[in-house]
Amino acid sequence: MTMGPQFRPVALEHASRLLNHGPTVLVTSAHGGRRNVMAAAWSMPVEFTPPRIAVVIEKHTCTRELIMASGAFGLCIPGAGLVDLTYAVGQASGRTLDKFAHHGIAARPGPVLGMPVIEPGCAAWLECRLIREPHTEEAYDTCFGEVVAAAADARIFAGGHWSFRDDNAALQTIHHLGGGHFVRAGGTVRANTAP
Amino acid sequence: MTMGPQFRPVALEHASRLLNHGPTVLVTSAHGGRRNVMAAAWSMPVEFTPPRIAVVIEKHTCTRELIMASGAFGLCIPGAGLVDLTYAVGQASGRTLDKFAHHGIAARPGPVLGMPVIEPGCAAWLECRLIREPHTEEAYDTCFGEVVAAAADARIFAGGHWSFRDDNAALQTIHHLGGGHFVRAGGTVRANTAP
Repeated sequence: MTMGPQFRPVALEHASRLLNHGPTVLVTSAHGGRRNVMAAAWSMPVEFTPPRIAVVIEKHTCTRELIMASGAFGLCIPGAGLVDLTYAVGQASGRTLDKFAHHGIAARPGPVLGMPVIEPGCAAWLECRLIREPHTEEAYDTCFGEVVAAAADARIFAGGHWSFRDDNAALQTIHHLGGGHFVRAGGTVRANTAP
Repeated sequence: MTMGPQFRPVALEHASRLLNHGPTVLVTSAHGGRRNVMAAAWSMPVEFTPPRIAVVIEKHTCTRELIMASGAFGLCIPGAGLVDLTYAVGQASGRTLDKFAHHGIAARPGPVLGMPVIEPGCAAWLECRLIREPHTEEAYDTCFGEVVAAAADARIFAGGHWSFRDDNAALQTIHHLGGGHFVRAGGTVRANTAP
């Protein structure tokens, strides 16, 4: 694919579909002139409307610190072409490194909360307002958020639906098995939906 | 594949790997002579050790009622060969139907909590003890659980690792996009893990 990203807004009532199939995500954060990006395999939608999600972010990470300070975060869904980057930002700490600069990641401020959103190579992104839940944050490192903006590359998600095809393989979502091994979503399977 | 299931125990420290890549699961439940099975796309690990998970189970479902009564549930991970069944058990309610009997699902009681576990056609299962969290159950339909037993079909998960190959396509995990459309995990992608 030689064209640049073709991002279009995703209706908030469709936002859960971006995470429904369990992709690994990049969690972005920013506060007071600092910013960070990490990989997270553990996230899920929890509600359609309002669109709410949960994501596990370890309490000692730089990302967690920035999210608690700003009350917001971004979830960017990397395509298969970003598999090396996804693994790499999951290994280093943002305390000692501006990973955006180090890896040359082009990010821009999201439209509602100003969280960094990444478009080149990503299939989609969601901008989320943290819903404070001190107990689950402490006990399970589980952070809840409400999606306030979302967008997707129209070549792989349009009209509220994913489309995994031969011609968009580099944008297909990746799902971490562990240790740098990912599976790529593809090979669409259709259930018999006749009643 | 003509052989029957070849399930082997999964070490509890590896249990999170069964859900790490976001497969759609079958949630099983049983209490007082009743039993049920439903599909859930929204689950994730939240901790490695002790192995803990979160799963979204809507509060008005039969499954939620049985789980709250028994304090336990099963998560079975269907292979691609069970895509029709997975979709079907997500559509009907267990209040009016014994879905195990209706669909001819072979289940047996799990080893620790007696939750129904399904092996034929599934890649793996986990037996979980509910961790009561009334607030998140009510606010987000999010139920936490501790994994107390797990097993996987050795043809696709062995030695703590998934192996997606041409010869085990029917056991490869499925990831729901919505409306009966699933993607099948496959097409393994390896990140550059050199430092």
